[in-house]
Amino acid sequence: MTRFTFTIAATDGKARTGRIAMRRGTIATPAFMPVGTAATVKAMKPESVRATGADILLGNTYHLMLRPGAERVARLGGLHRFMNWDRPILTDSGGYQVMSLSDLRKITEDGVTFASHLDGSRHLLTPERSMEIQRLLGSDIVMAFDECPRADAPREIIAASMRMSMRWARRSRDAFDGGGEHAQAAALFGIQQGALDEGLRDESAAALQDIGFDGYAVGGLAVGEGQEAMFGVLDFAPGQLPADKPRYLMGVGKPDDLVGAVERGIDMFDCVLPSRSGRNGQGFTWDGPVNLRNARHAEDSAPLDPRCACDACTHYSRAYLHHLIKSGEILGAMLLTEHNLTFYQALMAAMRAAIAEQRFAAWAAMFRRDYASVAALTA
Amino acid sequence: MTRFTFTIAATDGKARTGRIAMRRGTIATPAFMPVGTAATVKAMKPESVRATGADILLGNTYHLMLRPGAERVARLGGLHRFMNWDRPILTDSGGYQVMSLSDLRKITEDGVTFASHLDGSRHLLTPERSMEIQRLLGSDIVMAFDECPRADAPREIIAASMRMSMRWARRSRDAFDGGGEHAQAAALFGIQQGALDEGLRDESAAALQDIGFDGYAVGGLAVGEGQEAMFGVLDFAPGQLPADKPRYLMGVGKPDDLVGAVERGIDMFDCVLPSRSGRNGQGFTWDGPVNLRNARHAEDSAPLDPRCACDACTHYSRAYLHHLIKSGEILGAMLLTEHNLTFYQALMAAMRAAIAEQRFAAWAAMFRRDYASVAALTA
Repeated sequence: MTRFTFTIAATDGKARTGRIAMRRGTIATPAFMPVGTAATVKAMKPESVRATGADILLGNTYHLMLRPGAERVARLGGLHRFMNWDRPILTDSGGYQVMSLSDLRKITEDGVTFASHLDGSRHLLTPERSMEIQRLLGSDIVMAFDECPRADAPREIIAASMRMSMRWARRSRDAFDGGGEHAQAAALFGIQQGALDEGLRDESAAALQDIGFDGYAVGGLAVGEGQEAMFGVLDFAPGQLPADKPRYLMGVGKPDDLVGAVERGIDMFDCVLPSRSGRNGQGFTWDGPVNLRNARHAEDSAPLDPRCACDACTHYSRAYLHHLIKSGEILGAMLLTEHNLTFYQALMAAMRAAIAEQRFAAWAAMFRRDYASVAALTA
Repeated sequence: MTRFTFTIAATDGKARTGRIAMRRGTIATPAFMPVGTAATVKAMKPESVRATGADILLGNTYHLMLRPGAERVARLGGLHRFMNWDRPILTDSGGYQVMSLSDLRKITEDGVTFASHLDGSRHLLTPERSMEIQRLLGSDIVMAFDECPRADAPREIIAASMRMSMRWARRSRDAFDGGGEHAQAAALFGIQQGALDEGLRDESAAALQDIGFDGYAVGGLAVGEGQEAMFGVLDFAPGQLPADKPRYLMGVGKPDDLVGAVERGIDMFDCVLPSRSGRNGQGFTWDGPVNLRNARHAEDSAPLDPRCACDACTHYSRAYLHHLIKSGEILGAMLLTEHNLTFYQALMAAMRAAIAEQRFAAWAAMFRRDYASVAALTA
């Protein structure tokens, strides 16, 4: 069986489509990975997630190390068996979420000590421990451990942080490679840092390629810098990374973010947006996002999106979804999460087809026109 | 098409098994009706509820009249279409929940005025309005409007309340019969009152039979009187009601309540217990209830119940269910609700088979031994 093979089937401008072949399954790219934070994509059974078209899920090292704990998951047969998902899983390194969720952080060259947001217990996360946790979980795509500073920090802070992340990337590579059987079966991705600075991004990309990874993530974006600044970085960052390896934009994003990023050469994405906003009553459609809390939907017998084949759109009215969301019913979260994940996968499939048929620019222009123009009127 | 036919296929002692044939489907009895309070069985898609074996759901007039409103449901094509359930639905009259949930109630001979627990708005519920709401919802089995006093109230209060409920039953019958097409398609059940008093129960049963209904409910139980007192009433109440009509014990109950009530001649049940306790982390098994919050399940790789064919028991460990419940994950509520409704339907199917094969007493003894003896040890 192949450990990790990335094949580009077609390119159109900077956009590419292809597939990643791994032991547990094949991932069509550009790919969107639903987020299964705590060993579940919230409000979805795994077979329903698969039915939306997802080839791979993301799991969060930070959450899983705290609850139920990586050693416990390992004793129970690994994350795939624990959560009943037999296809590939990518795990993040914990680095980003330690910064955004935990308390009382202290960062040294060794790693990060922090207090759990659940119970205040003290933990240490280092490149070596992050690799060990991801191995214990049985991750298929392991992310190097990095630090992600604020994008608006002074350049010298960004530079120093990036250089430490590159030293941590080296330690991650070494620790991963020492993981025995798991290293023979899984892949390791490096993460480019450098915030919005082209020179630092270039230095980071070079450092990562010196080490060598199966894929490369563009890290440190989607942290509040806005779409224009993010696209500004994506105008150069993917080109700094190897063309023959997958490029993964972490934590992104809105549908129009995905289209603009694919246009700039990105192959993989993850984001909580479709699931989280579904729980909050927002449904994504080809005409833009729809807020089902809005009273205008209270007697609307039309489906959320007549072009969607998901269960929410084929069996229920906007009026019913409005009622469920207003009433705080779990079924509302279930149906809108299913719809949004179906929409995201349909969006990725449409992009893959447009790239394969060399009509991506025209497709993207059409998408933007429909998505932006009607949204303001109908939400 | 038959409007309402109750056929008893077999009896065993006081227990009976048979079926109710209606326009929208057939209901095997003894039947358990999952509760779809606000036009959804919480945390379940309707096709999943059906897959557990449910032939009929219960909807709550009180909740639906307040949100989304009966007229709105009617404009959207009725409750079946609104919630995507095409089999029979029984609706309660709103009487009981006005008493237990609303504020600022005032009861007169005309009906009950009350303030919504959602927004404080004032509403009037009378026998005529209750029939109108249930007609607007498109209910298949309509319940007469009644008042349910505290079981420990003085006898003269219980008696006066019961006699008013009997006058309301007459008005319910008249209003239902004036409902045009709906009255030709739906059934109307009367509700016996009289708390724990055999004489009052007898008087109530006689009054209801003078009016004439398609089925008869034993009301005013499961309000805190305890199983022994409830069984005490069930030792005589079903026998006061017509043998050739379904007998429905409202709001009951725990698995052992159901077994004892079937043993005493009850044919239909509804209760929020399997769904509500599922959301709270309690799973029902043939060995008794299991509290999955308990730390003893944290590393238990065994299924919740190896004899159960539901998704929760075939694909997940107790350890995973424990993790989901401890983490407040929606999937925990989904899986445990599905399991508990599957268990309840399996329990009803087992009772139907035991009655049909004239071995109900032996079956019930075996059930009680297994259910009670291990529960305390494993919960």
